[in-house]
Amino acid sequence: MRVPPLPEIMIEPAVRAALIEDLGRAGDITTDAIVPQEARAETALVARSAGVVAGLDCALLAFRLIDSAIRAEIARPDGSAVAKGETIATIAGPVRGMLSAERVALNFLCHLSGIASASASIVVAIKPHRARLVCTRKTTPGLRALQKYAVRVGGGFNHRFGLDDGVLIKDNHIAAAGSLASAVARARASIGHLVKIEVEVDTLAQLEEALRLEIDAVLLDNMSFDEMRRAVGLVDGRAVVEASGRITPQTAPQVAATGVDLLSSGWLTHSVTALDIGLDWR
Amino acid sequence: MRVPPLPEIMIEPAVRAALIEDLGRAGDITTDAIVPQEARAETALVARSAGVVAGLDCALLAFRLIDSAIRAEIARPDGSAVAKGETIATIAGPVRGMLSAERVALNFLCHLSGIASASASIVVAIKPHRARLVCTRKTTPGLRALQKYAVRVGGGFNHRFGLDDGVLIKDNHIAAAGSLASAVARARASIGHLVKIEVEVDTLAQLEEALRLEIDAVLLDNMSFDEMRRAVGLVDGRAVVEASGRITPQTAPQVAATGVDLLSSGWLTHSVTALDIGLDWR
Amino acid sequence: MRVPPLPEIMIEPAVRAALIEDLGRAGDITTDAIVPQEARAETALVARSAGVVAGLDCALLAFRLIDSAIRAEIARPDGSAVAKGETIATIAGPVRGMLSAERVALNFLCHLSGIASASASIVVAIKPHRARLVCTRKTTPGLRALQKYAVRVGGGFNHRFGLDDGVLIKDNHIAAAGSLASAVARARASIGHLVKIEVEVDTLAQLEEALRLEIDAVLLDNMSFDEMRRAVGLVDGRAVVEASGRITPQTAPQVAATGVDLLSSGWLTHSVTALDIGLDWR
Amino acid sequence: MRVPPLPEIMIEPAVRAALIEDLGRAGDITTDAIVPQEARAETALVARSAGVVAGLDCALLAFRLIDSAIRAEIARPDGSAVAKGETIATIAGPVRGMLSAERVALNFLCHLSGIASASASIVVAIKPHRARLVCTRKTTPGLRALQKYAVRVGGGFNHRFGLDDGVLIKDNHIAAAGSLASAVARARASIGHLVKIEVEVDTLAQLEEALRLEIDAVLLDNMSFDEMRRAVGLVDGRAVVEASGRITPQTAPQVAATGVDLLSSGWLTHSVTALDIGLDWR
Amino acid sequence: MRVPPLPEIMIEPAVRAALIEDLGRAGDITTDAIVPQEARAETALVARSAGVVAGLDCALLAFRLIDSAIRAEIARPDGSAVAKGETIATIAGPVRGMLSAERVALNFLCHLSGIASASASIVVAIKPHRARLVCTRKTTPGLRALQKYAVRVGGGFNHRFGLDDGVLIKDNHIAAAGSLASAVARARASIGHLVKIEVEVDTLAQLEEALRLEIDAVLLDNMSFDEMRRAVGLVDGRAVVEASGRITPQTAPQVAATGVDLLSSGWLTHSVTALDIGLDWR
Amino acid sequence: MRVPPLPEIMIEPAVRAALIEDLGRAGDITTDAIVPQEARAETALVARSAGVVAGLDCALLAFRLIDSAIRAEIARPDGSAVAKGETIATIAGPVRGMLSAERVALNFLCHLSGIASASASIVVAIKPHRARLVCTRKTTPGLRALQKYAVRVGGGFNHRFGLDDGVLIKDNHIAAAGSLASAVARARASIGHLVKIEVEVDTLAQLEEALRLEIDAVLLDNMSFDEMRRAVGLVDGRAVVEASGRITPQTAPQVAATGVDLLSSGWLTHSVTALDIGLDWR
Repeated sequence: MRVPPLPEIMIEPAVRAALIEDLGRAGDITTDAIVPQEARAETALVARSAGVVAGLDCALLAFRLIDSAIRAEIARPDGSAVAKGETIATIAGPVRGMLSAERVALNFLCHLSGIASASASIVVAIKPHRARLVCTRKTTPGLRALQKYAVRVGGGFNHRFGLDDGVLIKDNHIAAAGSLASAVARARASIGHLVKIEVEVDTLAQLEEALRLEIDAVLLDNMSFDEMRRAVGLVDGRAVVEASGRITPQTAPQVAATGVDLLSSGWLTHSVTALDIGLDWR
Repeated sequence: MRVPPLPEIMIEPAVRAALIEDLGRAGDITTDAIVPQEARAETALVARSAGVVAGLDCALLAFRLIDSAIRAEIARPDGSAVAKGETIATIAGPVRGMLSAERVALNFLCHLSGIASASASIVVAIKPHRARLVCTRKTTPGLRALQKYAVRVGGGFNHRFGLDDGVLIKDNHIAAAGSLASAVARARASIGHLVKIEVEVDTLAQLEEALRLEIDAVLLDNMSFDEMRRAVGLVDGRAVVEASGRITPQTAPQVAATGVDLLSSGWLTHSVTALDIGLDWR
Repeated sequence: MRVPPLPEIMIEPAVRAALIEDLGRAGDITTDAIVPQEARAETALVARSAGVVAGLDCALLAFRLIDSAIRAEIARPDGSAVAKGETIATIAGPVRGMLSAERVALNFLCHLSGIASASASIVVAIKPHRARLVCTRKTTPGLRALQKYAVRVGGGFNHRFGLDDGVLIKDNHIAAAGSLASAVARARASIGHLVKIEVEVDTLAQLEEALRLEIDAVLLDNMSFDEMRRAVGLVDGRAVVEASGRITPQTAPQVAATGVDLLSSGWLTHSVTALDIGLDWR
Repeated sequence: MRVPPLPEIMIEPAVRAALIEDLGRAGDITTDAIVPQEARAETALVARSAGVVAGLDCALLAFRLIDSAIRAEIARPDGSAVAKGETIATIAGPVRGMLSAERVALNFLCHLSGIASASASIVVAIKPHRARLVCTRKTTPGLRALQKYAVRVGGGFNHRFGLDDGVLIKDNHIAAAGSLASAVARARASIGHLVKIEVEVDTLAQLEEALRLEIDAVLLDNMSFDEMRRAVGLVDGRAVVEASGRITPQTAPQVAATGVDLLSSGWLTHSVTALDIGLDWR
Repeated sequence: MRVPPLPEIMIEPAVRAALIEDLGRAGDITTDAIVPQEARAETALVARSAGVVAGLDCALLAFRLIDSAIRAEIARPDGSAVAKGETIATIAGPVRGMLSAERVALNFLCHLSGIASASASIVVAIKPHRARLVCTRKTTPGLRALQKYAVRVGGGFNHRFGLDDGVLIKDNHIAAAGSLASAVARARASIGHLVKIEVEVDTLAQLEEALRLEIDAVLLDNMSFDEMRRAVGLVDGRAVVEASGRITPQTAPQVAATGVDLLSSGWLTHSVTALDIGLDWR
Repeated sequence: MRVPPLPEIMIEPAVRAALIEDLGRAGDITTDAIVPQEARAETALVARSAGVVAGLDCALLAFRLIDSAIRAEIARPDGSAVAKGETIATIAGPVRGMLSAERVALNFLCHLSGIASASASIVVAIKPHRARLVCTRKTTPGLRALQKYAVRVGGGFNHRFGLDDGVLIKDNHIAAAGSLASAVARARASIGHLVKIEVEVDTLAQLEEALRLEIDAVLLDNMSFDEMRRAVGLVDGRAVVEASGRITPQTAPQVAATGVDLLSSGWLTHSVTALDIGLDWR
């Protein structure tokens, strides 16, 4: 099943804000001065390099919010792998609106497609292995829901969406609690029954301590491949094993080969390379 | 003179929104469950690779908005070139607040420092030449003011902030107006006296036509180095000459060597590589 | 450890909005007309019936937002069980501000203390048993984070905060998927590793099917006490067992006696009886 | 004439905010994972106990904001007295949207119908008498306009909507002014000609003083039935007489029998019992 | 007693929005480029023509929101009549912030002082008579609360703040109801006990009908002075009599001389002449 | 070409806010109580004095946001010169919505048409000369984009929209920089290539200094007609020459006759006289 779209109510505030950010106080002074109100055109969103489409709803909403007379036909919806030169959607309507919305539409589409494409490149690279790719909270301020959606579109999965939907115990928490056992006990004493607990570990000794506490997942922080393999053996299915630390398409296969369940990559969202998509005018 | 900071009133909404985005509806359930309210700590924002600092105000505001008892001392303000391992600021106060704000603070700081560092790398690369580096409207939705500030911090300059603060006539505008002369005339007939006109040209013939119209700037779109050089000669100081098209630290020196006035780079803001900065706990 | 307070950044928008809602366009016309600006007074928030305090931060913030010169001293913080007549906090400062903020402050305090008190009454009633009390998504629009906080203050726990932080499979989901097995498989194929799955069951046959799928929790929907007891035996620790259906202080002990892990009560938040707290003027 | 609906512009922000509150950052992960996009269903909002409907516009708007393809047919509009089992509206459309909006829609409908039903129960109880029922400013933060609308739907009337649309002089105002006469004089010297003045009185002596000042209404605060009766005689039509103090369906008839004009009840809005309404799937 | 100030919580959103409106996306580029961060100055808000001060809180808040280091000393608070050349307040602090906030601060102060001054000029003109001056709902969108405050500062009174705080029956209402009697009856059947009813009348016959219905106030719409006098006689104290229709300082005394209770003037707020106030730099 | 309309996304927030401001918490209590829901009417926006129409989109949007069933037909769009009695648009639909939106619609239309009309009166007055009329930043807080649009509709042009879209160097900037040369140099060192520099000058000596620095425009501050003429001669086309200082329809022709390029008038927006437009009911 295709990744379900976010309901428009969830994306509209960001698209509206981006349009206002670009229109400023005077609007599109170039287009307004030059282009007649009655001019009409047909255009196409075209991939200028290969990748995975994400954010088409945002892009099309940008056009629609500027001028409700703009119509679009989707050729390659979110999740489609597109080749260079492939048409993603055709858009027709008043030239003014299309010119005024073009940049904002592309900013969403290129950014989110960039994330989906990067995600897909890792997902493909680790396909022979059991590991899933997950993203982190290292997102661009204000765009978390959209960026995490793009990761899903690219075949990845989502780690926590925020500080409130999962317990992740790190070294500073342990230090504050006195011990990992105490930290886990305090967490258990306060969280709801649908909240899981993950513990970040640096060493196999810490890992053993964590496993004794029957936590749900462990995060192996910057371990060597060899340590990861031993960690996977030690866990033996008793917890989900997440590996983190500079996961990129290059490094991912080796990490996945250690047998871990998850590769978490901040790179997916903190260092996005936009996918090159343009609006071609006919 | 150092790049002046944005007034807090301009950055606070973005920082506040990012914190809410991360806190969600339940707040930092890990920290709240585990860390005693009275725990205090000293930490430091430390560069994990070399670069240029930008966004420190946002980062420190994130801590302050979570807990006004958190105090910071700035060692290397925005605009500082930092080496790997260098301390940017020290932060002290309640552990709870520091843990809860850490990710948001770093998301701003690493993102904006990434932009400043990329800008600086191009600025350095083109130093022997007269050209300035400018950014574009290919920004991340919602962050334009902050990203353009980071470009300035990195030594670059800002192109238009939006559709409303400069006229930029592209091929579709010309098509709609019938001719470049008509497009420029329409623009002149409507804009204010502090608004400049720039025209995008693909060929030297177009350039000559534009110069006859006494426009303020020309944008050479994806020209070869040789064409650029000839364009610069043709313009001969009668307009600002901007070169665009896949400007990166690698390509920039050659473009600058053609004698153009400006290198405009969408890459600076649409494909940001975060600068690696961490919060070290003592 | 006391329930940690919500950071002010999370409660301030609601308090500010409530003040504006009450002040309208003309402000407190009675007080402004009658009370001299220089008048000062001391007052006390006093419980007029016994209960558990929650929302004191909201109440005090209401006073502070109206006039930053108003000072408070907390006698009985959130989570305190108070007797009739007991002072919760003393508040001193300009009379105008105190009169103008009084109603909004009390509206928060009485509402949230009502929820905490109701929660506490059930928590006490089921103390002999292992069961925990949890709240639901049947909350007052706009106040979910605050209401769920109040449940925690009263000794209860939080079920899902929204549609996005846990999978809860109900009969309509099963119908749409064709079978429970298919529904669970689809969920597993898309959710993150920190997300748990709970299934609502009406019969013991459904329960057995759910257990075979190794889900994390089961919700027994409106079962008889006898069925609940048999369900608990059947589950035998393999999943968290939640009982729902008209849980009140009266019915709770019997439900808890069946051995279930959780009692979930919509009543806690959809049918709140405000705790009677007043502002006494000295 | 039926109580006129609030214009959509007045209710939409609350409904939109409630949906966002429930969807969070990831949306309805259960439904999105399990239910096919093309699935359609017919459902009905059905009363599970008898009461008066209020808030149907909010509920239907919740469905529409999630998916504009959802259609509704209203059987029993706001103000209708419904029996247990009666259908209030039928709703048809995409299953995903209906499941995602269900809880928010019901939260509005059950809450506001609860208020309307409570109001109606008092209105019926005092029907033999001349008294009207009015609500107070003891409302749930953020929902005042909606709650006061629900009181009207239930046959009640609205007291002040805020601090700004009526003068209500209480003991602290009198103390600050030195005397009731001075307080009334100050109010008269500043308010507009469409603003009325009401005075809260504890004793018949105070009442006589207030009447001499020709105020518009008096609020008898926690008087005995006998005092109320004497107060009504004393007033003799010279002011509107409001009785307050723990007005419930049980106590209301006796209070009304004293001849007062108004019974004001904070209970209507500060201690709401939700009306049990569910969404039945066919 | 001086007109009480609006609480800061009521004015801050407008001031903050105005600053953002002026700062745009790049801030004060002139000042930031030219003025050193450490430069300090003393300035004074000085009246350049005579009038009544209003909006000083807004102006000073603008400075404070830009830079909290800016300090002010108030010489002539809101409500003061100032002569040309008189100092209203002195302001000291960082030059950057003072230059960046200057225009917004003056925009509030000159606009609101303009309203207060116009109000005062009418109030003075009608002093020999019993009539009060009131404003209308013909206000500048978004500034109603501030503009009505300025009218009060100038010695005027406020008519309705909106459609919701008073009943004003006009000819179209009467037409829709069939008769004035029916319109008044319908209003009485639905409004709260603190809401008054005013009726707009064009003729003395209508006035007599209105008086028979015992309404609270009548609005004489564009009557001649003679008709007004006869209307006042006819009413004979049974209702408040409001005269409207092009009330200006020139026409006001004659209208007031007819004996009406109120002169309502849309001109006060729909056609504001700013009071000339400047910021002098020392 | 007609002045292009602002896209609805730019005007909707202001219109929505103005409606909420007028509806308050209870809505239009007069209309709701009296007018039957099914009543329909035809009305017309009619000029009660001659002027230039601006803001019709805002006015019609106000009606549409209150009730989407209201339909309008435009007779005289923005920019039309209308005579007294001329119909601007006809509006038909539910009476309730039309009455509830009427005031807000007129507030926008009368205010913006007032600005357009004042602008047009100056534009006409200076037609024999080369000078253009421009507005300033002396606008009503929150309405800058709309007011500047109205100036354009009236035939004027826009000066800066904010502090961020043009450099305007005044005496305090020069003082802070030490000299005009230093101020201009600092500005040039930081601004983008599409940003122009204007300098305010008080004397011809300052003007000569400014011209030597090759700035784009000069602002002659409160010069005599004779000085203006000499300034124009001195500039001799090397910069745009702007004259400011109490420009009104009376003074404008004489200023324009000096040969300056621009007349800037704060009066256009800080002292607006609303155009008298009413809604006639048929």
